[in-house]
Amino acid sequence: MKFSSKIEKCGLSPIRKFYPYQVACKAKGTKIYHLNIGQPDIKTPESYFETVRNFNAPVLEYAPSPGMPECIKKVEDYYKNIGMDINPGDVVITAGGSEAITFTMMCILDDGDEILIPEPFYPNYKTFIYNTGATIVPIPTTAEEGYHFAEREKIEKLITPKTRAIMFTNPGNPTGTVLTAEERQLMADIAKEHDLWIIADEVYREFTYNGEALATMGTYEEVKDNVIIIDSVSKRFSACGARIGAVICRNKQFQAEFMKLCQARLSVPTLDQLAAASLYDVDPSYFKEVNDEYKKRRDTVYAALKKIPGLVCSEPQGAFYMMVKMPVDDAEKLLIFLLEEFEDNGETVMFAPGGGFYQTEGKGINEMRIAYILNCQDLERAIELLGKGIAAYNAKYGK
Amino acid sequence: MKFSSKIEKCGLSPIRKFYPYQVACKAKGTKIYHLNIGQPDIKTPESYFETVRNFNAPVLEYAPSPGMPECIKKVEDYYKNIGMDINPGDVVITAGGSEAITFTMMCILDDGDEILIPEPFYPNYKTFIYNTGATIVPIPTTAEEGYHFAEREKIEKLITPKTRAIMFTNPGNPTGTVLTAEERQLMADIAKEHDLWIIADEVYREFTYNGEALATMGTYEEVKDNVIIIDSVSKRFSACGARIGAVICRNKQFQAEFMKLCQARLSVPTLDQLAAASLYDVDPSYFKEVNDEYKKRRDTVYAALKKIPGLVCSEPQGAFYMMVKMPVDDAEKLLIFLLEEFEDNGETVMFAPGGGFYQTEGKGINEMRIAYILNCQDLERAIELLGKGIAAYNAKYGK
Repeated sequence: MKFSSKIEKCGLSPIRKFYPYQVACKAKGTKIYHLNIGQPDIKTPESYFETVRNFNAPVLEYAPSPGMPECIKKVEDYYKNIGMDINPGDVVITAGGSEAITFTMMCILDDGDEILIPEPFYPNYKTFIYNTGATIVPIPTTAEEGYHFAEREKIEKLITPKTRAIMFTNPGNPTGTVLTAEERQLMADIAKEHDLWIIADEVYREFTYNGEALATMGTYEEVKDNVIIIDSVSKRFSACGARIGAVICRNKQFQAEFMKLCQARLSVPTLDQLAAASLYDVDPSYFKEVNDEYKKRRDTVYAALKKIPGLVCSEPQGAFYMMVKMPVDDAEKLLIFLLEEFEDNGETVMFAPGGGFYQTEGKGINEMRIAYILNCQDLERAIELLGKGIAAYNAKYGK
Repeated sequence: MKFSSKIEKCGLSPIRKFYPYQVACKAKGTKIYHLNIGQPDIKTPESYFETVRNFNAPVLEYAPSPGMPECIKKVEDYYKNIGMDINPGDVVITAGGSEAITFTMMCILDDGDEILIPEPFYPNYKTFIYNTGATIVPIPTTAEEGYHFAEREKIEKLITPKTRAIMFTNPGNPTGTVLTAEERQLMADIAKEHDLWIIADEVYREFTYNGEALATMGTYEEVKDNVIIIDSVSKRFSACGARIGAVICRNKQFQAEFMKLCQARLSVPTLDQLAAASLYDVDPSYFKEVNDEYKKRRDTVYAALKKIPGLVCSEPQGAFYMMVKMPVDDAEKLLIFLLEEFEDNGETVMFAPGGGFYQTEGKGINEMRIAYILNCQDLERAIELLGKGIAAYNAKYGK
């Protein structure tokens, strides 16, 4: 049977493909410290579960296609509170940030179009974009420069007549970079001057560690018709399994096109929308506690990494990820070594190899993404194992 | 800003576009009997709500991309029970039947490909298919022939080198037709001979009214690599708001391609999957009661329609819809008349105009889809209002 040429260009998740090695490793009785996945361990606010427990309609009906008014209202208020001029129709609830991105790409990208994305980037962007027939043009960055991409020259020389959009995750996954106010302004200027869409994936907005106020590309009035914000409750409230996201955009034509896709898929789960709405009433102290915890983890991981000779990394400013360049020939080979051959007191560690986060073939092969979603004690042990593992690997396979 | 040529080919839901007229009509204080929507009024089994109430993990985590094992197992067992040879990996849980169709189309259709669908058909198929760049080639049917499409000559003469698949809803939405065993075999034969995918949308499987055993295209071994079944808990358990569906396919290559899209969207809601799994434990008497109720409604609606002069319709055999040809010039004009000008003791009625269910321009303009999802007394009144409305409309606007 014949398959679509577009789906054949897509791949499986580069983060999940080492699962078989993990299973085999655990079967040996080895304990694995997971720095490879983005599932936070933070408790989901109780209001989520209270809301679903208190649901008492006899029939679980479809929700409206744009989302349940209760849920839309909370997202609207959230954006008003961070200084955005939000009006009815600007917010649509989606099945996670994933659906928001999928539908956005379907609305704005045609076969042969180009979209600029700084690399390394979230690998699933490839699948969402390849299915439209468009091409990803990566904005190059380096570990030595802390993966910063917001430079006019760097970006403008990549813009062609086929360029439709510039997309970035801010705070960054996998890099942990956070755009400064000047850098956000530069993104707005470039989009305005070159008539580009800005797709701002801001699902990690709350996770910054230098006391910045909550920022969004949605406050730049000169690009109010260019900016499409991707949002989600997954990380903000540690509710990944709710699959409740949103697209926030003030371009009425975009919302009209987007609604065609929303109506076709009918609705987003009713209970999860009501429960997600309740999350927005969580006490502000929740964010402070979570943020303090992640800041501690960030500091712990960064300090521990600094003790390993030959690593290149910068202190991450946001999200709960960082990219690290390692003194090895191949991060994937190292990972397999850690799972198949290495152990220290019956323990080893997993990370996400960097190659899958790049568009450019061959880039990132000696880099890794770390997700610091473990408690500080486990993080210290995990990084210690990493250091011992790298040394053992190079002793055996290094040149 | 520029939009995708594919999204521009799509339209808004033809069923939902009369919502403003409905609002204005209700504002006048007129009561509307809704025959226009497919939201069942049947109670969702209590086990769904019990399951979400009893969930007690502290963190609402992502589910596995293929679906939660508990939910997959129930669907596997369900298909084994109706005679299908199901093996691990053949069932993947999706965000409603809608995502199952969307992802299926992305996997098998390329720009320029053709897919055969008997018309009238579920309008959202258009959006799912247009976004792949493929074309719908309608298999024509007529009200006079009860909208039957399963004829070898009729179908084979539409097959070209670009034809990739044949898709049908069985039992039929909007027609209420049900394929006989011979007709299902014919579909399998044609797919086998012409190397086509069969996309069998069987979400209404339980809703047949002549005592047939539960049937699926999944039991035809000669096309085990061709058949893709679309399923959902929405109608089966009156749980539309759960948005839990499934794709069932024994073609390993298809499942490998499909999984790329599942991994990119991460997962389907955790709570809804667990709750949906519990629905499969409902007592068999549930289906008997629901089926008896819908059979009564079917009989009530059909008997009432027969009293209206000039209507062309056949007794629907399944689902809870039927298409009806009316003695009017334009069903949309009639609907607007019913909402803006007509009322009988302060009451009126809504249906879904037929045009939107057709691919062929101009077809179905004097047809309507009725969803018989009201109790029998309301259905009788609704059809009475329809008869009076048609008479009043023709008296005023008829030739």
